[in-house]
Amino acid sequence: MVASSVSSAAVSCTLEEMLESKEKEMYQHYWVLNAPDPPYFFRQLFENVRDTILPPSNSKNGCSTLVVNNNQQPLPRRLFELLTRIFPILGSLKGYNIRKFKFDVMAGVTVASLAIPQGIGFATLAQLSPEYGLYTCFGPPLMYAMLTSSKEIVIGNVSVDSLILSSMIANLKDPIQDSLAYTQLLLIATFIAGIFQLAFGIFRFGFLVDYLSQATIVGFLAAAALGIGAYQFLVLLGISKFTTKSDLISVIKIFWTSLFKHPSQWHPYSLTLGFSFLCFILFARFMGRRNKKLFWLPTIAPLFSVIVSSVVAYTVNSHEVNVKDYKVDVLGEIKGGTLNPISLLNLNLMDMFLGPLIKTGLTVAVISLTETIAVGRSFASLRGYNLDPNREMITLGLTNIFGSFTSCYVASGSLSRTALNYSSGAETTVSSIVMALTVLISLKFLTRLLYYTPKAILAAIIISVVPGLIDIQKAYQIWKVDKLDFLACAGAFFGVLFGSVEKGLAIAVTISFAKLIVVAIQPGITVVGRLPGTDVFGDIEQYPMGLSIPGLLILSPKSSFLCFANATLVRERIERWVNDDGHAEEEEGRSTLKFIILDISGLTNIDTAGIASLEELNKNLISHGVKLVMANPRWQVIHKLRVADFVSKIGGRVFVSVGEAVDACLALGAAKIMPNTV
Amino acid sequence: MVASSVSSAAVSCTLEEMLESKEKEMYQHYWVLNAPDPPYFFRQLFENVRDTILPPSNSKNGCSTLVVNNNQQPLPRRLFELLTRIFPILGSLKGYNIRKFKFDVMAGVTVASLAIPQGIGFATLAQLSPEYGLYTCFGPPLMYAMLTSSKEIVIGNVSVDSLILSSMIANLKDPIQDSLAYTQLLLIATFIAGIFQLAFGIFRFGFLVDYLSQATIVGFLAAAALGIGAYQFLVLLGISKFTTKSDLISVIKIFWTSLFKHPSQWHPYSLTLGFSFLCFILFARFMGRRNKKLFWLPTIAPLFSVIVSSVVAYTVNSHEVNVKDYKVDVLGEIKGGTLNPISLLNLNLMDMFLGPLIKTGLTVAVISLTETIAVGRSFASLRGYNLDPNREMITLGLTNIFGSFTSCYVASGSLSRTALNYSSGAETTVSSIVMALTVLISLKFLTRLLYYTPKAILAAIIISVVPGLIDIQKAYQIWKVDKLDFLACAGAFFGVLFGSVEKGLAIAVTISFAKLIVVAIQPGITVVGRLPGTDVFGDIEQYPMGLSIPGLLILSPKSSFLCFANATLVRERIERWVNDDGHAEEEEGRSTLKFIILDISGLTNIDTAGIASLEELNKNLISHGVKLVMANPRWQVIHKLRVADFVSKIGGRVFVSVGEAVDACLALGAAKIMPNTV
Repeated sequence: MVASSVSSAAVSCTLEEMLESKEKEMYQHYWVLNAPDPPYFFRQLFENVRDTILPPSNSKNGCSTLVVNNNQQPLPRRLFELLTRIFPILGSLKGYNIRKFKFDVMAGVTVASLAIPQGIGFATLAQLSPEYGLYTCFGPPLMYAMLTSSKEIVIGNVSVDSLILSSMIANLKDPIQDSLAYTQLLLIATFIAGIFQLAFGIFRFGFLVDYLSQATIVGFLAAAALGIGAYQFLVLLGISKFTTKSDLISVIKIFWTSLFKHPSQWHPYSLTLGFSFLCFILFARFMGRRNKKLFWLPTIAPLFSVIVSSVVAYTVNSHEVNVKDYKVDVLGEIKGGTLNPISLLNLNLMDMFLGPLIKTGLTVAVISLTETIAVGRSFASLRGYNLDPNREMITLGLTNIFGSFTSCYVASGSLSRTALNYSSGAETTVSSIVMALTVLISLKFLTRLLYYTPKAILAAIIISVVPGLIDIQKAYQIWKVDKLDFLACAGAFFGVLFGSVEKGLAIAVTISFAKLIVVAIQPGITVVGRLPGTDVFGDIEQYPMGLSIPGLLILSPKSSFLCFANATLVRERIERWVNDDGHAEEEEGRSTLKFIILDISGLTNIDTAGIASLEELNKNLISHGVKLVMANPRWQVIHKLRVADFVSKIGGRVFVSVGEAVDACLALGAAKIMPNTV
Repeated sequence: MVASSVSSAAVSCTLEEMLESKEKEMYQHYWVLNAPDPPYFFRQLFENVRDTILPPSNSKNGCSTLVVNNNQQPLPRRLFELLTRIFPILGSLKGYNIRKFKFDVMAGVTVASLAIPQGIGFATLAQLSPEYGLYTCFGPPLMYAMLTSSKEIVIGNVSVDSLILSSMIANLKDPIQDSLAYTQLLLIATFIAGIFQLAFGIFRFGFLVDYLSQATIVGFLAAAALGIGAYQFLVLLGISKFTTKSDLISVIKIFWTSLFKHPSQWHPYSLTLGFSFLCFILFARFMGRRNKKLFWLPTIAPLFSVIVSSVVAYTVNSHEVNVKDYKVDVLGEIKGGTLNPISLLNLNLMDMFLGPLIKTGLTVAVISLTETIAVGRSFASLRGYNLDPNREMITLGLTNIFGSFTSCYVASGSLSRTALNYSSGAETTVSSIVMALTVLISLKFLTRLLYYTPKAILAAIIISVVPGLIDIQKAYQIWKVDKLDFLACAGAFFGVLFGSVEKGLAIAVTISFAKLIVVAIQPGITVVGRLPGTDVFGDIEQYPMGLSIPGLLILSPKSSFLCFANATLVRERIERWVNDDGHAEEEEGRSTLKFIILDISGLTNIDTAGIASLEELNKNLISHGVKLVMANPRWQVIHKLRVADFVSKIGGRVFVSVGEAVDACLALGAAKIMPNTV
């Protein structure tokens, strides 16, 4: 379609020479009123849907399409390109060196030291045995790292998914009484969630996550970071009694209670250790920014803290062995010794609970996708690249499907682990692989060695990440540029902070759509004037030097869609203008208004209510002795005006531009301007 | 604000003479980039809300404002004008004559003969004694007729309100056990509904009913008419066993059951009588349309039918007195003899059920308003005038408040009575007064005489109205002009037909808003070309004669709001264009693309996501060696682009029109075009 219009644009220039002034005017008039019909409504709809869902045909940059269509290169190179498209990690290995690898290893090990305690904790939240958390922190990140186009996302089991799964499946089977059957149901739900995510990606529903705008993400990230920070602050204090709710209010409540009622819950050694290393990490980051030569300091700080604090904890705990309360709270014993067992054969899809399981799978699939892509986009925008949501959906879907075959439950992008990965200086997804391998090694051999890592140190590492996730400057920029966007940002922030991730995102999406409607239906008209010395016409509020033309009033609706929701208001305002203008002119004894030129170049569409209101406006203007003239209608609009027979009702006074309309009005005065060519 | 901009538009023309070509260009550039700031967001919001809610200040035509500001006329005349504004009926009495009065009396009596049986029926539906139905058909229409600006609306008790009231209040008090207390609760709910309606009108929430577009009303009216027709068809058959549900499916079920299982339910005499007079009325209407001299025939037909059929029924019923089943079904005995008793003192607002009563009142107030204004607008548009919804809300509110003082329950515009009033030839609201008085007389004296009016005749009269309410031609017109509007129309039609009035309207409003969003966010770009022999640029799909300019690509987004929902898609399409164009030009050996001019005259707004996507587009274009140029930004858009610092990122290449942008690009080639004036 597009190609054909380009060729038709290349009509020879002799037409231009052919036209004489009067004839030319007729031609232009003919052009407006006899434009080809726009594509039929359903074809247009189909094309819009196709273009939204299908991948761009000839995309050069972007590895979202798997088709290699460059035949000029040698076969091995083409093969490598194809492989790169399937496994983006190969692309990032170009220019990979020992320096980058060091960073990746450091980040990977650091993230692993967070992923292991989190993985165990969230598995408990999902009412599973702890080792399932470690399984989920090994297999899925390994696979995801190969396939994702993100450079930062670290996936694994997260709190929201764990909570949803346990609350929905515990209704079907008792997790304590019938632990084995419960675990199997959870794995089936994971499989179903993966299928849904894969399907969303294949059918390219990725555009749906566009509805998470940058403003939403700024708010979401800040609130989520604050929530995680507050939660980890409790760990830092050494409070061991946790809530399953991670929203700010629950966390503050626990803090309050412990502060005034049970201050003995605080572990002074944990606290001291945690705060010392938090200060160290923050200072390291500050020094790294200040002095370019010390760039390695902030990167090495977390892992250094883990090692040193483990040594300290070992010393302290073995020293004061008699006073249990004064021990540093450490990770403690972890079951291990085996790789992920194969669970494929246990996935009985003919289960009697298939209905509820599909519902659970769909719910957790959507929330997991939303969170993963929100997290991925946040860090992609910090690094200045784009994430293809469809690709991530397919990748996450495949990962979860294979995860369900190997005793892993639903994995999503984890905000805290991804943030730690980013701030630990990860260069590529190799860090995820290192993390997975570290988890594996821990599972097999190191459960004894991890015993003495203090929980407070992990908390300090996470808390040190929080300030970087709260982008006040960006929020201020959004406020300055667009107040409604800021409202969406604030909605996401307070929704996530005081409600939940889902609530916050729902509020932000609702505000965003309300914004769309408000902008689309805004009533009001602007007066248009000629810019001195040009044939250009513009809003005289925007261009105060614009000149008005006696006997003419050029108006333009502010809205881009004259429809049921604003047509009456727009009509009333135009009529008020005419009345006011009429009064003013009668008083001043000037020539009376003869034409209203409606500059509708900004109207992208019109509906039947809009046309009806234009018809009424025309009737009312005629009764005031004023003629209505339309200038610069767009394709859809002129088509509808013609079909609705409105063009003939205003005597065919439709012109290709405001300039032409003004010239015609001035030349012919109140007389009949143009033969009706429709 | 508007007045000041007009005065500033009158800048003297000497500026024009002052400008030389190069200087002029600089000036124009300065104009774009240094436009005054748009009104602050909250001021703009406030002004939009104020203009939407407040009445037009100097409205000449329209009696919605009660302020008489013409001081030049003598006092009595001014007094009369003021009175006319309060009581529009006085205005319609201008030019009132005996001929019009005859029509009004005929219509009034005809409507009364429908209102009486309906009033009694719906009162039973509301679980009240029958006389309350007649009270509601006397007081409220009388008062409403004085105050309304509609010429047709006949109000009274209607089925929907009756159903809602009885279903919500029967939960609070048993209507059979404690009939008196139940009736009092119903009157309190009526009072509360009136207060809500009055408040909606005073705070000018009338714009909300604009969301009932013409398309919605066409669908609503057709379905409601079909429903009423089908229901009355049962009456015509003489089936006495009624359903409380008036939706089509229930009615068809009853018809089906009676046809195959209980054909004995049919009353052959009623049927014969009804069908004969239906044919007579339709024939009379046909003759009246065909022969202008017989214009009185269709008007007199309904009342004539009532009288003749009553005589026939009297004869038949007294003749075959022994066979009960063969009697014609007539209205029968009606309690009467008294005027509306005063109920003011029984309205105990301190009732223990005040909470639920407020909920009931609000529900019924909204539904009653929606229906009344939908009915009023339908007939106003048939007659070609406009209804001020705020005025109707105030009027209906006052009517219901006073109604609740005089033993009347909620009154709304009745579709069937209004349609009968219209088709009986009512000229003014005097017909409503006549109807009310007829009801009063019937209440006092004629309950014995109404005894023999056959129910089937009333049904025939209503059925004869149905075809006029189904505007297939209009629906086809809507389909031709706007497919999405037709969808709203169809939604209203099927929703009302197979669901309920509320469901149908809710579906239509939802579709209408979805339409707004779809239109606002449509992705896609159009290629713009120069129209031969002009400085005008237009979409080359709309103007296939448009000429492209080598080295330049002029694109324009189709959407009017570059925002989170479409910005990525628009950017991707532009990048695809550049890639495709680059390939094509390389192959053909033409000069490569140097500039992309983005004609953003159609963009009414942009949000932060839109700006972010423009920034990324700019980055990507630079990497292709292409420069981005913006042409003709609107006030809000250029303001936001400046605040977000985007203008400096594209080197200040923003021009007042596409023509200027093209000239600048052509003149300066790939060199730096313009000093950055921001």
